[in-house]
Amino acid sequence: MVITIIGLGLMGGSAAIDLKKRGFASHIIGVDTDSINANAALHIGFVDELMEMDEAIAKAELIILAIPADAAMKVLPKVLDKIGKQVVTDMCSTKGTLLEWVKYHPNRKQFVAAHPMAGTEFSGPWAAISGLYDSKAVIMCDTEDSDIRAVAVTKRMFETLNMRVIYMNGANHDVHAAYISHISHISSFALALTVLEKEKNEKHIFDLASGGFDSTVRLAKSSADMWTPIFSQNKDNVVTVLTTYINKLKEFRKHIENDEPEKIRQLIQESNRIKKVLFR
Amino acid sequence: MVITIIGLGLMGGSAAIDLKKRGFASHIIGVDTDSINANAALHIGFVDELMEMDEAIAKAELIILAIPADAAMKVLPKVLDKIGKQVVTDMCSTKGTLLEWVKYHPNRKQFVAAHPMAGTEFSGPWAAISGLYDSKAVIMCDTEDSDIRAVAVTKRMFETLNMRVIYMNGANHDVHAAYISHISHISSFALALTVLEKEKNEKHIFDLASGGFDSTVRLAKSSADMWTPIFSQNKDNVVTVLTTYINKLKEFRKHIENDEPEKIRQLIQESNRIKKVLFR
Repeated sequence: MVITIIGLGLMGGSAAIDLKKRGFASHIIGVDTDSINANAALHIGFVDELMEMDEAIAKAELIILAIPADAAMKVLPKVLDKIGKQVVTDMCSTKGTLLEWVKYHPNRKQFVAAHPMAGTEFSGPWAAISGLYDSKAVIMCDTEDSDIRAVAVTKRMFETLNMRVIYMNGANHDVHAAYISHISHISSFALALTVLEKEKNEKHIFDLASGGFDSTVRLAKSSADMWTPIFSQNKDNVVTVLTTYINKLKEFRKHIENDEPEKIRQLIQESNRIKKVLFR
Repeated sequence: MVITIIGLGLMGGSAAIDLKKRGFASHIIGVDTDSINANAALHIGFVDELMEMDEAIAKAELIILAIPADAAMKVLPKVLDKIGKQVVTDMCSTKGTLLEWVKYHPNRKQFVAAHPMAGTEFSGPWAAISGLYDSKAVIMCDTEDSDIRAVAVTKRMFETLNMRVIYMNGANHDVHAAYISHISHISSFALALTVLEKEKNEKHIFDLASGGFDSTVRLAKSSADMWTPIFSQNKDNVVTVLTTYINKLKEFRKHIENDEPEKIRQLIQESNRIKKVLFR
């Protein structure tokens, strides 16, 4: 199958590598408005050629949008304007707004909204790796509004990436994404800011980062281009979960301030229940 | 050298494995008030024999306390009461309170306060692993109050564990530990609580945990026995850093609520500076 990937960063590049390697893609056309990214993708070799968008759409059977959520709002309607029988899918971390946006597009049925729950804290074509998607989940949203054949092609594509397919409506997806993914990133960005503010005075604090700090702050390396529109588009859910999170932190602070070790212990033990859920 | 390790969990066990393997310890005596832990340590094989504390102190040249911070407050003075020429060190994550506590003990000079900045989210003797301490930092505190020979022995021990030694006073240590280690743990405990509260209603949220969520919530598996006394003993610093952290989260919330993507982007980009510090 000839595939066009729009957006040649971590997500698009990692998909390209494995879709080619595993025989799903016979030929991969790359599109990226950033010429440095585009040329890097060609040199690294995960796309076979670069094209302008219109030509790349015309030549493909499947088009994958692997661009930030704000760019997707602009690009998706344009892609849908141009397609004939082609199938279009995306990889955005927010779904509700995008689905509303194209709801009445005459080619809506050719589009399958998807969110592969995978990633690293790195970005750009040089961050693309084989195996990124392996054994992770992909959420396909509102598939009843898509053509059966389009859903089948998209599903086969994600299964080639060794992903587990979960079906959900767009609104539910955005709630889950806020709790599982978006809050983790804000938590990490804020942690980095907290430590960096202190570091103005005490430089060698960073000599001391042990495993725990590294892993909680790792996500703070993530791209602002990707995450800013996600928080904006998923505003209501993100604000709700952020409020719950701040309240939990205040509970800790209160019990620490009031010298209540038994209450601190209870909070920690309650949080330890996460072990049963994430036992791996 | 004959070494007695008091507390046969993750920290004590991991030290035992590598001190023996690398020839620093000729014989390791284990002490643990929890008989399940003690017998597991003997069966796993990282201690050569188990003893009651008084006898274990008498037979050792170096005594390592690898117990929670509240237990250390009780046990350290008792150990110092019993020793002759033996050197005593500890591994607690808070230093100020403990150092105040034994400041005027007649054998204070035999004690070297240390905090190896290493660990995992697991606990107990079955969590002990070789290499836990490799290439991490150990902070030795107020060493001017310790005997030169005691400092030298302790330093050689930590260097055998491939640790980088940093010297600091106890009060400074506690500030750094709050920013680098303690806040990461509270951040993670609170994140787990936030998600678990939601999960009451929506069970399959956990199907969706991707790499980002796993790494930020990993520390929430950490032991309440270890962490409760740390937060209590380092109360003032932890409350300060927690307040800064909550304020950073509120900044995110404000800009998301007010539809200010440029300000969200600025916060993320500022937090991205952590890349330069933790480029690895």
